[in-house]
Amino acid sequence: MAGRPLRVVAFGGGHGLSASLRALRRASDEIDLDITAIVTVGDDGGSSGRLLTERDALLPPGDLRQALAALADDDPVTQRTARVLQYRFAEIPAGGEGPDPLVGHPVGNLLLLGLMEMLGDPVQALDHAAAMVGARGRVLPMARHAIGIEAEVRGADPDRPGAVVTVRGQHAVAVTCGHVEAVRIEPADPPVCEPAVEAIGAADWLIFGPGSWYTSVLPHLMVPRLAKAIMNSPARRLVTLNLAADNETLGLSVADHLAALHWYLPGLRVDAVVADGKWVGEPEPVRLAAEALGARLILAPVAVAGGSPRHDPESLGVALVPVLGAAR
Amino acid sequence: MAGRPLRVVAFGGGHGLSASLRALRRASDEIDLDITAIVTVGDDGGSSGRLLTERDALLPPGDLRQALAALADDDPVTQRTARVLQYRFAEIPAGGEGPDPLVGHPVGNLLLLGLMEMLGDPVQALDHAAAMVGARGRVLPMARHAIGIEAEVRGADPDRPGAVVTVRGQHAVAVTCGHVEAVRIEPADPPVCEPAVEAIGAADWLIFGPGSWYTSVLPHLMVPRLAKAIMNSPARRLVTLNLAADNETLGLSVADHLAALHWYLPGLRVDAVVADGKWVGEPEPVRLAAEALGARLILAPVAVAGGSPRHDPESLGVALVPVLGAAR
Repeated sequence: MAGRPLRVVAFGGGHGLSASLRALRRASDEIDLDITAIVTVGDDGGSSGRLLTERDALLPPGDLRQALAALADDDPVTQRTARVLQYRFAEIPAGGEGPDPLVGHPVGNLLLLGLMEMLGDPVQALDHAAAMVGARGRVLPMARHAIGIEAEVRGADPDRPGAVVTVRGQHAVAVTCGHVEAVRIEPADPPVCEPAVEAIGAADWLIFGPGSWYTSVLPHLMVPRLAKAIMNSPARRLVTLNLAADNETLGLSVADHLAALHWYLPGLRVDAVVADGKWVGEPEPVRLAAEALGARLILAPVAVAGGSPRHDPESLGVALVPVLGAAR
Repeated sequence: MAGRPLRVVAFGGGHGLSASLRALRRASDEIDLDITAIVTVGDDGGSSGRLLTERDALLPPGDLRQALAALADDDPVTQRTARVLQYRFAEIPAGGEGPDPLVGHPVGNLLLLGLMEMLGDPVQALDHAAAMVGARGRVLPMARHAIGIEAEVRGADPDRPGAVVTVRGQHAVAVTCGHVEAVRIEPADPPVCEPAVEAIGAADWLIFGPGSWYTSVLPHLMVPRLAKAIMNSPARRLVTLNLAADNETLGLSVADHLAALHWYLPGLRVDAVVADGKWVGEPEPVRLAAEALGARLILAPVAVAGGSPRHDPESLGVALVPVLGAAR
């Protein structure tokens, strides 16, 4: 195996995937990595939601754009390109005349929309955008078109606190205050991109999390062809746990996060679980939950300084080096 | 002078400037050229006009985008980037729900808008966009902010065919059916970009036209600091004549086009005038008008095949090689 880069596939969406990819970029200073991001395409809020509704966009571009920006080359030109792709049109202070329909759209979402329309193929569009930012890896969507996310949520309806209601849409699920009992995608068997299936099959490591567990991390396991590819892949699997629960996972323990992986993809074996000792609380239940999946628990200081529950890409990257390198 | 590239500055806007720049790209296969485009910023129609009105854009991006696309490197990646910058959001057939505020905007206009907002400086924004397409030259605006174009037009009002009325806006002037008697810019003395003034001062050649004469070619001569730089520049000057009159110049002879240069910049000397023998008609009046400016008339087949009054960049480039090279 020496001589070729270690192939890693990172699953997720939004800020969590962005942190994971930036950490892998950092790790690649020490180990030769071939990085592929497989990104959730269930976003129906904000700019992405508007482009789906008003423009029939093939895919919600927001999470794809964030993954591309995270992988952008360090060169000043490509870094500035990444910055303008992330630049979001804000309300202008003294305002022009009339309404401003661009407010809220990041430039990169409009560029990705244009590429997808012009080329008609999401993989070609993403590969081109990756070339524009000199991406140190490939960004692929979880499915060839936008998917819906739905959840059965207990207590989402304040008038009937014990009742289970269906909450529709990634955004609505992500911000629900009830207890999520089950999540599903719609359609149940979306078409996938062959390069994503191939990347999973050829990987040395599959990396899940961090990120919104129900709406960014678990959905990949619900896509039948990806689930099959994951189960059949000879790759080792690593889970990076979230530092704190967010709205959708309130009431879910850290151990429950791990159990949920198994619930949505029965038979999934995991090799390593990375968590931050300061945030994980009592480690024993987490260690047991990790071992139930076949994994060892690795505690490392991977959070940003200052007490905010966010991963520090530099620290996470440093923590990943010995873990990933051990597969050699 | 041998050893350094020949410095050429091309003035204009829209399709005319695009043809001129593509021709210079072609000529640069044979002579080493350092190309700078100085672009009109008076566009108030279409996507650019909407971005000025709705978004208080610093500059109308349309003509700048076209110049960048014309200078894009031949590499497949930068060519595709140029293509997506030129890609214009069209009405979508089966339509999403609701109105679609993106229709009519080219992706590159939105990218330039984002860069100008993010960086706050039009020259930095354009230099970055140039790097994104690997531009074989520099694109600079005629002024640091959008300017207005106004014309006194006889016969623009169908109810008073003999009356002279003021027509405001580049778009309105460009499509007027009356006879343009005078054109002016507003403000009369807009702030300019120093790199544009410097490029004019350091040039070996200044190239005017082709393009909409009143709204894309002559406005540069009306900007006092550019006019002064042009008059003081040691560069030779070349005029590429239009093949046919457009709306705004109906009734203006080819010779009148040349006379107009002198009218708007008294004392301007010209070295060479390039025209197409098939389109110029009786050459003698044109030769005399060229000679009145100090120029020799060069007749060459520079139009596209098929009878459309458009310059063929390949043929124009071939025709420019001996003319530009003679300055050595």
